[in-house]
Amino acid sequence: MEQRPDLATVRQAQRRISPCIHLTPVMTCAALDEISGNSLFFKCENLQKGGVFKVRGAFNAVLSMEPATAAAGVITHSSGNHAAALSMSARYRGLPAHIVMPVTAPRVKIKAVRHYGGLISFCEPTLAARESRTAALMAETGAELVHPYNDWRVIAGQATCALELLEQVPDLDVVLVPVGGGGLLAGSLISAQALKPGVSVYGCEPAGADDARRSLQAGRIVPSVNPQTIADGLLTSLGDRTFSVIREWVEDIVLAPEAAIVDAMRCVWERMKIIIEPSAAVPLACLLCGNLPLRGKRIGVILSGGNVDLNALKFNA
Amino acid sequence: MEQRPDLATVRQAQRRISPCIHLTPVMTCAALDEISGNSLFFKCENLQKGGVFKVRGAFNAVLSMEPATAAAGVITHSSGNHAAALSMSARYRGLPAHIVMPVTAPRVKIKAVRHYGGLISFCEPTLAARESRTAALMAETGAELVHPYNDWRVIAGQATCALELLEQVPDLDVVLVPVGGGGLLAGSLISAQALKPGVSVYGCEPAGADDARRSLQAGRIVPSVNPQTIADGLLTSLGDRTFSVIREWVEDIVLAPEAAIVDAMRCVWERMKIIIEPSAAVPLACLLCGNLPLRGKRIGVILSGGNVDLNALKFNA
Repeated sequence: MEQRPDLATVRQAQRRISPCIHLTPVMTCAALDEISGNSLFFKCENLQKGGVFKVRGAFNAVLSMEPATAAAGVITHSSGNHAAALSMSARYRGLPAHIVMPVTAPRVKIKAVRHYGGLISFCEPTLAARESRTAALMAETGAELVHPYNDWRVIAGQATCALELLEQVPDLDVVLVPVGGGGLLAGSLISAQALKPGVSVYGCEPAGADDARRSLQAGRIVPSVNPQTIADGLLTSLGDRTFSVIREWVEDIVLAPEAAIVDAMRCVWERMKIIIEPSAAVPLACLLCGNLPLRGKRIGVILSGGNVDLNALKFNA
Repeated sequence: MEQRPDLATVRQAQRRISPCIHLTPVMTCAALDEISGNSLFFKCENLQKGGVFKVRGAFNAVLSMEPATAAAGVITHSSGNHAAALSMSARYRGLPAHIVMPVTAPRVKIKAVRHYGGLISFCEPTLAARESRTAALMAETGAELVHPYNDWRVIAGQATCALELLEQVPDLDVVLVPVGGGGLLAGSLISAQALKPGVSVYGCEPAGADDARRSLQAGRIVPSVNPQTIADGLLTSLGDRTFSVIREWVEDIVLAPEAAIVDAMRCVWERMKIIIEPSAAVPLACLLCGNLPLRGKRIGVILSGGNVDLNALKFNA
């Protein structure tokens, strides 16, 4: 796919991936409505297959490949949720998925990729090593690169999340989306723009990884350099495709301080009794810390994922 | 209510409380189906109002009181979830709720009761002190005692949970219910017996608090003495009302060791991305540890609640 997806393309993606993914529920919480002074509608992608929205884009990319191209499989150099999602999607279609990961990747992520049958190729933990290993593997295998976010097929897949939300909850005023590489945000903007152009879509970013906000202000992609945040899904820089959509349609990109992210995550665990990862807490954090001063609005909040390493928590205390 | 509720009474309770409580979802999890070798249907009372099934019985008791009796309010000496649920129900009807709690009650439980407007009366942490304080307050205020489980109105309310589950998921073979004082188990038995008499209902109990199993075997109530378990909602002894129902209809009462309870709880957090409290993990623990050797069955699992004190967990690790 060589151009920005439109509504028809997103709907096609939705039909394509719907047998493989969950139609995730939208939850509400009276206590959080009261605390925030708004009506909040939480789109629970933490309950998505694999625990994160990433399967949407990965399945759309894998299932839309032509048979001739597909046979050689797919490749990516994400070490995170996209790698597991791509492995799952490729296995579903019976294709090999090559995953280039740094030797320093957390065991829990290696385990997830292996669980879904991904073929891991370890490299040194530098961008240069990742890229050269990926290029070498592509030449060797003929596998097609599926970038974690800067790929229109992936963006069209992620767009199905906001599409669902806007169909599940009528009359939203606002949608809040976490932004890392920008795939989920760009997809949400495409769906909202096409379906409900009156809805304001905000990108929500950790203050310790504020490259998207700085990019928006500068009018060009400002790379993410040495980001420091607990929201480990939001460390990457924007890509040219995601940025082109974001700069055109996003209402604004707002920041959440670290303490607000932890508080918001805890708040969701405690009040809603569901597990979300720090990255997924960033939109609520922006709202509750006051950086996004909305009152009396109907707000869709995309809870992007729930993959937390519970080894860090004490269970017997 | 002076006699064991029948299906009509449970349906009446359902109509009475439905405006005040959530119709909780039933969740499934492919990973847990695979691990257990059964099809599991989780009734998510952790997503219930107040985070636990207890609101069902409390609302039914409070809303079914005659106006003349109700005016003086209600009283209980539970220090746990029932106290919060009774406070919430009484506030809904505009009545006072007197809660007798030991001075040693955890701050988080005191806070929950205060949040819902319960009037706390502290006493020494002995059964004698609790009972005498409760009797004195009843004499002084005229408030009506709503026992946490040994009360037919409460049992009829708890029965609505299994009623819903049996209506939400047709053709269950088995229903698994945690047992402490036995209100939820007795209620589940009443609903299953009336609606689907072919469904086997098991009580699931921590091995470290196995008084219900011993009571069933002895044919009389064996008190819970010095129970030792992380499942802090299941410490109490059966009552004569709950026991009369349980001994008649329960398929069996099975035990879960402590390690299995922690593992099952963690498994639900990790795989299903929802928070359940240790007591709610006991049925799954019985299944996964092999004490309940079922295979290929359609099993309803009541996840009774999700009130965990997150202060015990480290969030910044």
